[in-house]
Amino acid sequence: MNLQKAIKKINLPDKEYEKKAALRLDDQARPKGSLGLLEDTARRLAGISKTLDVRLDRKIIVTCAGDHGVVAEGVSLFPQEVTAQMVYNFVDGGASINVLARHAKASVRVADLGVNHDFSPELPIFHKKIAKSTGNIRKEPAMSRNQAIASIEAGIAMTEELAKAPGLDLLGTGDMGIGNTTPSAAVIAAFSGLDVKKLAGRGTGLDDRALKHKIRVIEDALELHRPGPGDPVDVLAKVGGFEIGGLAGLVIGAAALGIPVVCDGLIATAGALIACGIAPAAGSYLFASHRSVEAGHNYMLKHLGLDPLLDLKLRLGEGTGAALAMEIMDASTRVLAEIRTFEEVQIRNAQK
Amino acid sequence: MNLQKAIKKINLPDKEYEKKAALRLDDQARPKGSLGLLEDTARRLAGISKTLDVRLDRKIIVTCAGDHGVVAEGVSLFPQEVTAQMVYNFVDGGASINVLARHAKASVRVADLGVNHDFSPELPIFHKKIAKSTGNIRKEPAMSRNQAIASIEAGIAMTEELAKAPGLDLLGTGDMGIGNTTPSAAVIAAFSGLDVKKLAGRGTGLDDRALKHKIRVIEDALELHRPGPGDPVDVLAKVGGFEIGGLAGLVIGAAALGIPVVCDGLIATAGALIACGIAPAAGSYLFASHRSVEAGHNYMLKHLGLDPLLDLKLRLGEGTGAALAMEIMDASTRVLAEIRTFEEVQIRNAQK
Repeated sequence: MNLQKAIKKINLPDKEYEKKAALRLDDQARPKGSLGLLEDTARRLAGISKTLDVRLDRKIIVTCAGDHGVVAEGVSLFPQEVTAQMVYNFVDGGASINVLARHAKASVRVADLGVNHDFSPELPIFHKKIAKSTGNIRKEPAMSRNQAIASIEAGIAMTEELAKAPGLDLLGTGDMGIGNTTPSAAVIAAFSGLDVKKLAGRGTGLDDRALKHKIRVIEDALELHRPGPGDPVDVLAKVGGFEIGGLAGLVIGAAALGIPVVCDGLIATAGALIACGIAPAAGSYLFASHRSVEAGHNYMLKHLGLDPLLDLKLRLGEGTGAALAMEIMDASTRVLAEIRTFEEVQIRNAQK
Repeated sequence: MNLQKAIKKINLPDKEYEKKAALRLDDQARPKGSLGLLEDTARRLAGISKTLDVRLDRKIIVTCAGDHGVVAEGVSLFPQEVTAQMVYNFVDGGASINVLARHAKASVRVADLGVNHDFSPELPIFHKKIAKSTGNIRKEPAMSRNQAIASIEAGIAMTEELAKAPGLDLLGTGDMGIGNTTPSAAVIAAFSGLDVKKLAGRGTGLDDRALKHKIRVIEDALELHRPGPGDPVDVLAKVGGFEIGGLAGLVIGAAALGIPVVCDGLIATAGALIACGIAPAAGSYLFASHRSVEAGHNYMLKHLGLDPLLDLKLRLGEGTGAALAMEIMDASTRVLAEIRTFEEVQIRNAQK
């Protein structure tokens, strides 16, 4: 599926099943609305899956990795080499995302969209490298328009691959890329027009001075490229990242295939912003896992109109928040299917 | 164990294991502090369990039920009979708490502390009835001081029973009792001295007028009894409830036995407030599961100095928030034990 085909393929979730789910939730033996966001989640999943007994058995998190030219400006505490090292750590199973995905009974797939390292073709990852690192956005565009589209289409291709038998019930998106909170903050700045000071965060742990510098770098990049919400592909090309493009493609691809998708924190949600900018209907398949401590994330969630399921003060990425949220989403499906209605309770009591 | 003995038995968690846990979390191959509340939770659990590989295999939620004389004032949308009906529904396995506990691989035990109904002695619940319903707190004390102590000691006795072989790794507390948001709001008002208008919530769904009335009822009760934080047992006796006493006893008992305990929303946290008022050291074993939409709950959490793990806009009770939080707590133990340190990653890479 190329991008245009995927966009056309997105159907809205089934309103009838959403209604049926809402009725059943209201009829359950408990005060109306008392399970809050679990109810919203269950209702939306019912509409997507066209059943009141949604089963999220096959859960996969795709962690998209890429490097960023802007690290030359000193916007991160960690050296660029860490991106590739962490890809190996993911494959080896000892990283944070592996641990939390195991707990959620999800599997992890890693994708190289633009890591500045030559991985052996035998390494069991998605080999989708567009280029080795983006350009330094303070001085040049992150990538060409064609590369931006290619990174999105790489994400779409991964969803097609993952949806093959035995299939995929819930996709999670996560990221790895030293320096990638900088382009992500630039993306939400481009979409919202808000002051960068409100949007930039400390990433892996910048001090006040380094944060000020990061803000200046983002302001300079926006001043140079002037990307706007009218052309989301241009935003991705000018100030984004290859893994952000991949993350956008995952959302569009999942929506095209009718699969719910839960995004992680700042970077994954930057990808979701691009995706929903290009194809607003994709938002119907999108769930927000958590509220990151990164300042810009809250504005992204507002822009997308999403209520996050968790608020655990996470700021790690990799898909860790998405993994945890999968457990809550799974619980929400049991809420809808298994909590008895007042009528069912009366029938049980009468049978005794 | 009577109350005095239980209080004396509470030891503080092991500071050495907390330190070891903090060091390991800091050494893991990810930015320091990036897993937020998961790290705090894992560190505290390590101190309680004296290991860096905490296993929360045996999880039990105790749902304490009781009735309230104050329902005569029209403070709830549901009739009092629903308390007993829901006890049967819990035993039958079809209620919200059953569904969410199953998902968390926890079991549910129901306790009658003061339901206005005669249950058969064969019904598989904890039979701990102090009396059939409390007094109407607008006109009389909820219970006598002796009854208050008896309700707390009933909670302590349940923890001793549950801690017998094969043992208990994590206790969750939940409630059922029509009208019990009214005494719970009165409890936090007595502890905080704050305006009742700030503390009272809509319970199962009161409209503006009914909420105003509920506030007046609570104000009248406080004016009549003048309970204060200096004597938490008196607060329980004057404006509390039998299930709130049981919930307090569960916290004290768990702390005395060195078992972590996670409390649900407004009513379970009212019990925890009483418990920590009587035995401040019990707070070291206490975890807050979620932030309820009930206004007073936030003030309870502040008073206890606890950060809740979830913010899902729940307002159900039964222990539903505690069940969901158990999954997050379980994940936090895997974070501590399984995410590799930078050193472990290097050793693995060198071995290849």
